[in-house]
Amino acid sequence: MKFTLLFFFLATMLSTSHASSIPHQIHLLRPHSGAAGHHVPSSSCLSWRLAVETDNIRGWNLVPATCETYVGHYMLGHQYRKDCNAAAYAALVYAKSLKLAGDGKDVWIFDIDETALSNLPYYARPDNAFGAKEFNETTFNEWIEAGISPPVPAILFLYKKLVAMGFKIVFISGTSETYRKVRISNLKGAGYHTWEKLILKQTSESGTTAVVYKSKKRKQLVEAGYRILGNMGDQWSDLLGTYVGNRTFKVPDPMYYIS
Amino acid sequence: MKFTLLFFFLATMLSTSHASSIPHQIHLLRPHSGAAGHHVPSSSCLSWRLAVETDNIRGWNLVPATCETYVGHYMLGHQYRKDCNAAAYAALVYAKSLKLAGDGKDVWIFDIDETALSNLPYYARPDNAFGAKEFNETTFNEWIEAGISPPVPAILFLYKKLVAMGFKIVFISGTSETYRKVRISNLKGAGYHTWEKLILKQTSESGTTAVVYKSKKRKQLVEAGYRILGNMGDQWSDLLGTYVGNRTFKVPDPMYYIS
Repeated sequence: MKFTLLFFFLATMLSTSHASSIPHQIHLLRPHSGAAGHHVPSSSCLSWRLAVETDNIRGWNLVPATCETYVGHYMLGHQYRKDCNAAAYAALVYAKSLKLAGDGKDVWIFDIDETALSNLPYYARPDNAFGAKEFNETTFNEWIEAGISPPVPAILFLYKKLVAMGFKIVFISGTSETYRKVRISNLKGAGYHTWEKLILKQTSESGTTAVVYKSKKRKQLVEAGYRILGNMGDQWSDLLGTYVGNRTFKVPDPMYYIS
Repeated sequence: MKFTLLFFFLATMLSTSHASSIPHQIHLLRPHSGAAGHHVPSSSCLSWRLAVETDNIRGWNLVPATCETYVGHYMLGHQYRKDCNAAAYAALVYAKSLKLAGDGKDVWIFDIDETALSNLPYYARPDNAFGAKEFNETTFNEWIEAGISPPVPAILFLYKKLVAMGFKIVFISGTSETYRKVRISNLKGAGYHTWEKLILKQTSESGTTAVVYKSKKRKQLVEAGYRILGNMGDQWSDLLGTYVGNRTFKVPDPMYYIS
């Protein structure tokens, strides 16, 4: 199992992948000014992060204050990128093991926020503090409206491979339907040029939890004859529920929780 | 959310919890002699571990050779213990949020190996190399037969709290029924003195995967009127399938995979 070796290969490949109009370099950001000099109880925050990533801690509202700096450094540093690469690489190994029917019904589902696209430039702002400060719907919607979220490089890399292999891509996002136009331009600008469906949340669905909403959308896909071979998201609510697909892949996200 | 503060409290509590005959100090072990001087690509191995813990990598047979030393240091060091504490603490916070019916049907399920009991003294042997060497059924069975597995301290701590709160404990293990006697003495020796059921694998079930076997056993519990409020294990096959319970808790284990 040459996992780590192939890892470096993937990392090298990633550095050569570029979208047309939105820069990929989310690593150029730096922690906000409050980071310097704070005590970082990193081993406990690493445990907290693992507990979040394994769905042991649910329904949490804010990154613990003591872990704000830790999460900031994680998100802006190498480890987050390596963790995303590991998720993408595991997905690619699985995808390559499949024999597609090639009838246009072989589907791979991607969530959008913190999966296909990164809102890290938004969350890195001092007002948001990597999820350690209360979610501000107004400023977040302004950020989405701007349509300048960069791709998560590892996921864009995987996406391109999957498209080349013949997978049909379906994006399922909790973003409101009212943002369809800007989401399309953001996805395209970030390098996601083609998809089978882009499923956004209707106004009538606004009260539904993500796990119920996404299960319903996946059910409709299956009923329409699609085979969900892979399903990738940063929230467990993307990956649990019903019709989750043959394999699920959790992309790291220690900044927020969506039920 | 005073997660990290309460963490230290839990860590303090743990150090005061002692079983009668089996020492808890699995941290006294040291890596086998091959560890010194090896290059440890720790950030990639951390990504590999996260991918394993989030069930992104499945069906793996061995710890990657490049991560043997990393996994050894992790398992013998502070981080594994802190990660176990985080899982136990998340479970305890959840358990305390419940109002039990108190009719003897409020059940908490524990897996045994690498959950209630630790086989780390076995896996730390050079022949096993923390899962980087091929599983040896003969020596592993000899180890189980010896019945001297220490508890995972955080899980024993949680167990005692749950018992005091009125939960009925059910152990579901893939261990063969033929080891019942020694497993009972091992559990009691490690500090697990009481349980509602100790479910082991019958000879007739030996060909069944863990996820199918454990789902079947949980179904029987639910049909017998038990409410599975919590379910804790080190393998996703403990926590996926059917009748998984109201909440699941993943205990870390980067040493082996059971489907």
